[in-house]
Amino acid sequence: MPKRKICVVVTARPSYSRIKTALTAIQDHSDLKLQLVIAGSALLDRYGNAVDFIEKDGFEIAAKVFMVLEGENPTTMAKTTGLGVMELTNVFYNLKPDAVLTIADRFETIATSIAAAYQNIPLVHIQGGEVTGSIDEKVRHANTKLADLHLVASEDAKQRVIKLGENPEKVINTGCPSIDLAKEIAEYPFLDFDPIEKYGGVGSKLNWKEGYIVVMQHPVTTEYKQAKAHVTETLKAIKRLDYPTFWFWPNVDAGSDGTSNAIRSFRELEKPDNIHFFKNMEPTDFLRLLKNSKALVGNSSAGLRECAYLGVPVVNIGNRQFRRNRATNVTDVNYNLNEILEATENAIKTEHFESSGIYGNGDSGKKIAEILATSELTYSKTITY
Amino acid sequence: MPKRKICVVVTARPSYSRIKTALTAIQDHSDLKLQLVIAGSALLDRYGNAVDFIEKDGFEIAAKVFMVLEGENPTTMAKTTGLGVMELTNVFYNLKPDAVLTIADRFETIATSIAAAYQNIPLVHIQGGEVTGSIDEKVRHANTKLADLHLVASEDAKQRVIKLGENPEKVINTGCPSIDLAKEIAEYPFLDFDPIEKYGGVGSKLNWKEGYIVVMQHPVTTEYKQAKAHVTETLKAIKRLDYPTFWFWPNVDAGSDGTSNAIRSFRELEKPDNIHFFKNMEPTDFLRLLKNSKALVGNSSAGLRECAYLGVPVVNIGNRQFRRNRATNVTDVNYNLNEILEATENAIKTEHFESSGIYGNGDSGKKIAEILATSELTYSKTITY
Amino acid sequence: MPKRKICVVVTARPSYSRIKTALTAIQDHSDLKLQLVIAGSALLDRYGNAVDFIEKDGFEIAAKVFMVLEGENPTTMAKTTGLGVMELTNVFYNLKPDAVLTIADRFETIATSIAAAYQNIPLVHIQGGEVTGSIDEKVRHANTKLADLHLVASEDAKQRVIKLGENPEKVINTGCPSIDLAKEIAEYPFLDFDPIEKYGGVGSKLNWKEGYIVVMQHPVTTEYKQAKAHVTETLKAIKRLDYPTFWFWPNVDAGSDGTSNAIRSFRELEKPDNIHFFKNMEPTDFLRLLKNSKALVGNSSAGLRECAYLGVPVVNIGNRQFRRNRATNVTDVNYNLNEILEATENAIKTEHFESSGIYGNGDSGKKIAEILATSELTYSKTITY
Amino acid sequence: MPKRKICVVVTARPSYSRIKTALTAIQDHSDLKLQLVIAGSALLDRYGNAVDFIEKDGFEIAAKVFMVLEGENPTTMAKTTGLGVMELTNVFYNLKPDAVLTIADRFETIATSIAAAYQNIPLVHIQGGEVTGSIDEKVRHANTKLADLHLVASEDAKQRVIKLGENPEKVINTGCPSIDLAKEIAEYPFLDFDPIEKYGGVGSKLNWKEGYIVVMQHPVTTEYKQAKAHVTETLKAIKRLDYPTFWFWPNVDAGSDGTSNAIRSFRELEKPDNIHFFKNMEPTDFLRLLKNSKALVGNSSAGLRECAYLGVPVVNIGNRQFRRNRATNVTDVNYNLNEILEATENAIKTEHFESSGIYGNGDSGKKIAEILATSELTYSKTITY
Repeated sequence: MPKRKICVVVTARPSYSRIKTALTAIQDHSDLKLQLVIAGSALLDRYGNAVDFIEKDGFEIAAKVFMVLEGENPTTMAKTTGLGVMELTNVFYNLKPDAVLTIADRFETIATSIAAAYQNIPLVHIQGGEVTGSIDEKVRHANTKLADLHLVASEDAKQRVIKLGENPEKVINTGCPSIDLAKEIAEYPFLDFDPIEKYGGVGSKLNWKEGYIVVMQHPVTTEYKQAKAHVTETLKAIKRLDYPTFWFWPNVDAGSDGTSNAIRSFRELEKPDNIHFFKNMEPTDFLRLLKNSKALVGNSSAGLRECAYLGVPVVNIGNRQFRRNRATNVTDVNYNLNEILEATENAIKTEHFESSGIYGNGDSGKKIAEILATSELTYSKTITY
Repeated sequence: MPKRKICVVVTARPSYSRIKTALTAIQDHSDLKLQLVIAGSALLDRYGNAVDFIEKDGFEIAAKVFMVLEGENPTTMAKTTGLGVMELTNVFYNLKPDAVLTIADRFETIATSIAAAYQNIPLVHIQGGEVTGSIDEKVRHANTKLADLHLVASEDAKQRVIKLGENPEKVINTGCPSIDLAKEIAEYPFLDFDPIEKYGGVGSKLNWKEGYIVVMQHPVTTEYKQAKAHVTETLKAIKRLDYPTFWFWPNVDAGSDGTSNAIRSFRELEKPDNIHFFKNMEPTDFLRLLKNSKALVGNSSAGLRECAYLGVPVVNIGNRQFRRNRATNVTDVNYNLNEILEATENAIKTEHFESSGIYGNGDSGKKIAEILATSELTYSKTITY
Repeated sequence: MPKRKICVVVTARPSYSRIKTALTAIQDHSDLKLQLVIAGSALLDRYGNAVDFIEKDGFEIAAKVFMVLEGENPTTMAKTTGLGVMELTNVFYNLKPDAVLTIADRFETIATSIAAAYQNIPLVHIQGGEVTGSIDEKVRHANTKLADLHLVASEDAKQRVIKLGENPEKVINTGCPSIDLAKEIAEYPFLDFDPIEKYGGVGSKLNWKEGYIVVMQHPVTTEYKQAKAHVTETLKAIKRLDYPTFWFWPNVDAGSDGTSNAIRSFRELEKPDNIHFFKNMEPTDFLRLLKNSKALVGNSSAGLRECAYLGVPVVNIGNRQFRRNRATNVTDVNYNLNEILEATENAIKTEHFESSGIYGNGDSGKKIAEILATSELTYSKTITY
Repeated sequence: MPKRKICVVVTARPSYSRIKTALTAIQDHSDLKLQLVIAGSALLDRYGNAVDFIEKDGFEIAAKVFMVLEGENPTTMAKTTGLGVMELTNVFYNLKPDAVLTIADRFETIATSIAAAYQNIPLVHIQGGEVTGSIDEKVRHANTKLADLHLVASEDAKQRVIKLGENPEKVINTGCPSIDLAKEIAEYPFLDFDPIEKYGGVGSKLNWKEGYIVVMQHPVTTEYKQAKAHVTETLKAIKRLDYPTFWFWPNVDAGSDGTSNAIRSFRELEKPDNIHFFKNMEPTDFLRLLKNSKALVGNSSAGLRECAYLGVPVVNIGNRQFRRNRATNVTDVNYNLNEILEATENAIKTEHFESSGIYGNGDSGKKIAEILATSELTYSKTITY
């Protein structure tokens, strides 16, 4: 029997981290053949050139798709998506996969969904059923309605996808593959590299060995005009905190220019000497950095997922993770200097938490591969009610 | 206070018929300004040049968008949609509407939805919440998840949209505007024109005055390779029936070439002398033709909607209208010569039915305009569960 | 040494006929690897589905590119070209050819040129340097200015390309590969098939064995609004001529709908019983049909090229071949019933002409392959004056 | 008589400077109506946001077109162009101009040419007929072959366009509108602003009042892999020169990322304290800055054009301006630290030159407007030989 061809489309650095162990498991599975498509910001230097990490990790790339329009505003986001539909349609037409995987809820993931669904290719959606604010919320549930098989990351998500009218047999809680990496790290948690030495970056040479925090704050697309104001509150809070901090630049989204510009101005004007900035980091190094930190501050989904498993305290700012399922390690605050400052001070003082399995127990990649190898692949469905 | 700008995107002849009274009501409303965009097959001669009827009806067109790729297969359907996203994004960027309306569930309607939602423009979805087979099913519910306000056509549809996690205050049963036209026709049902004289067409000069049926059969996109076989069953049944028949060519969809080719071959080889073929007809003339017919045969949604109100017997073939809400006037059959023949013979013998209001009572256009003028327009939402 | 990868983009049925022997020679050359891309109307059923003939001829297709927007007007022609640039850029990016071939002067050939030139891939232009009317004239010379190597079809064309400022060493008269086929046919000129039996088509069952003519008339893009009027003159002339006629439908171009519609109406209304219509024919069969005909009427470039070699009398109508180099077999007439009629009557009475070598002597395909295998491939140039 | 609608497409900051006086003259002409389209990098913050200057200068913008794909490599350059064709086709379809102007030779200008020519809109090409290296050379002459009217900037260019087979009556030497601005500046040459105060920028606070030079070096698209190495020679030379320097970031082109990155690294590592960096400057301020400088170093076309008129010494590096017509103010050097250093030292010591009129005498904008108002506008042509 020929191997099932599973086409996975990775469009951004964080999506890669989140799916990596599933990619490995698909590649290693005797009944599957991985067709890896790298597209969008994952190809761009400005967003951390994820493609380089991916190739270094030994994955063969079946197609590269340039599709990001410059401008970083809602208009170019929409046009990028349209272009993505056209390009990915070609890619699937030529690769003829047995199933296509679309990941989570970034705006351009719906391009993958349409290109597959309209060509009658079974569409598998990873990490549907969660709840957040912003355009991601619309995209995620639209992906669910276009998809034929749902591999969700939590029990909460599973119940929601079923409520959305999907056939319960097609909704499976595999946990989140990002937890697989977290599990590896949790087993050998030692920080075995010097972040500044290995990754360069810009900003102060920190004395971080006695303790540090990590900040990662992305713009929220439905609030993209406030991106600058929002991140500035965090910048001020962290400066006032005066504690060693590793800060990561935001990924590509409408408004990331606002966020990036705010960071740049703040650096130029305020010269915060407790912050060092990184563009990106290999996923495992990033998790190791988190595991050894006092806290993660910002609005990254890693705060709710990986940090739940790792037990790292998280100060979650604003609406980006609104209503996403969270363990006890998360403190929610508003875009407000004082709230952020106070919560971060508390987090630094807090011990790490017990590991929580709400997003899986570290075997998600393998579960996903096994399901893709064995479950019936269909491309037609009707709502259950 | 400036008028609210309501942008409606019409991409096909049947969508126009279905929305026409709403367009008129929006145009006439003192607090609204209509921005009418004509796109896709509605601009193409091969699909009946709906744009000509629209201009003749006195609507001003704000933008025309050529976006249909030739090929009529799933691949070009997907690429057409991607192109539509890009083009409509430009259009909305320039027109700056206060709300955008997307209609029902044709494959390219998701382009309208994405172009609006991603640009933070409130998206109104007309005729969501219904159930069918084929790719329409996926598209319709994905549109629901991208939309902010849902103006549905039946109580059944309303309950389904609410179950999909939409805020019940944002889901309003306006009935279907197509019923508004049906109501006008029902009030003056006389067939006041000679179809062949007015519309030409090809095929036999029928002796239709003593009774005739109407056939309209579209390809089903998830079954597009069977399009030819499917329509051939109907062609054979209608030929054997030997009763005067007005047959309408299918609209643009993957497979319509299969359908069209099948009809063309059948005509060439079998020379059915009881069938006359039309490309298209003005909506009111079409309804008048239906009202005076013995039955409608095929898989047109008009069979379930307008014919419910008009009380015309319908022989509904195959999966295209699968599970769509229907009144007692509909008989469902498979793609099977004998089933079609028998059901049509019965339908011809049957009296017309009582008028059913399941899709509205004829005031839908005005209701839609009033809601657009008065309800709060938002572009951010979260699932209710 | 690895084989040179030569990517040839075929976008239409007539371009295939014109390049076929070069494709074979490239495929058979020990130092070359053919990468054949089939795009545009060559993939479409409505335009004769050239792709089927190409596959039947045993060529392996490296990529298929759907890029034709429906509408057949100048606007969709331009958009098709833009889409072609985007798609072909992807194709070349993935195929990594050592050289790309663009053929002649159809509107979409500039897409091939841009996609190659902008990616620093050596661009070879086949059949530059000729002169005609219509948009082809602009496209052809723009292709020349984007190309690095010019393989022209006549001495006249060679001199013109050199005058355009191209390096004389990069301009080589290979003759036209279409003449290679003509040479084969000239060697065994017997009409070894029954056209109607083999190709079907529509229209009268002709009694053609005692003599027939062939008509092929394409719309002229700069005159696309007159397409209907222009072809109608020809239709009337041919009907009045009352001589057995094989007529070929036009290819895709702005206005071909006008031409096609005119033919359709004329058939319906006038029922010309001396004309049989074909959609398309295998290239060798077409040449055999020409060789055995009394004359070719219309504006096909085959009249000036292949018919020069075959010695077939040609009645060339209107501006499409304006100023293209011609042998003594061609009589030029205006879009005028009487002129067409008279010239065609004369042509039928005329003996066939001596074979002319102005477009080559039948070894063009091999010459082209040899040059591609041995000449230096560059992608940077400067005008010579 | 209705005013002639003249649509001008500006796709980059430098193109705007070059065409500005013509825009004003068109806007002010009683028989003309300006339709100004701003597209490509002219809309992007990263490339100096030309659109802001344009609006500040009081021009009304008829359409904005986002079309730049991220990546800054030959592949995205080609795709940007394809997208431009599609988008600009729409724009012209809706604006219905009587003529379209395309400017010079940037890669995306051919998009304007195709969108106009294919839609049978008379195409006017500004600044054809010049000679350079790089892809610009191909694009410029291809634009000439697509255009119907040629408004060239020098006598040398005029003769070349005529040699290219254009009708001499359609080739007019208007001079370059950029010289119009230069003339204004030459009449009041005083540097009436503090560059750092007005434009910010980054780098050293220079003591520039006793003398400074200006550097502007763009990547060359056919050498884009060497962009980093090339600009690094200049950076080293200027650092070693140790003379106050205003340096402008490059515009968008394949390789500008290489150039920008090289500058960024050099700044970080070498901390050159004699260089201040600007993103952009209003055209008149830029010319005033040049006029008061000791020399311009780099490969900007301003060195050959405006500086010829202003008499400013220029050190022209590498192939970008290869064979472009130049006055005596220009010294050509290779990508070589020592050559650059020596030539710049000489230039600083040299007096300014006599004004040269090879690119016009300062009345070009008005000449262009007058020709557009009065000359016959056609869209069909044939080569003259």
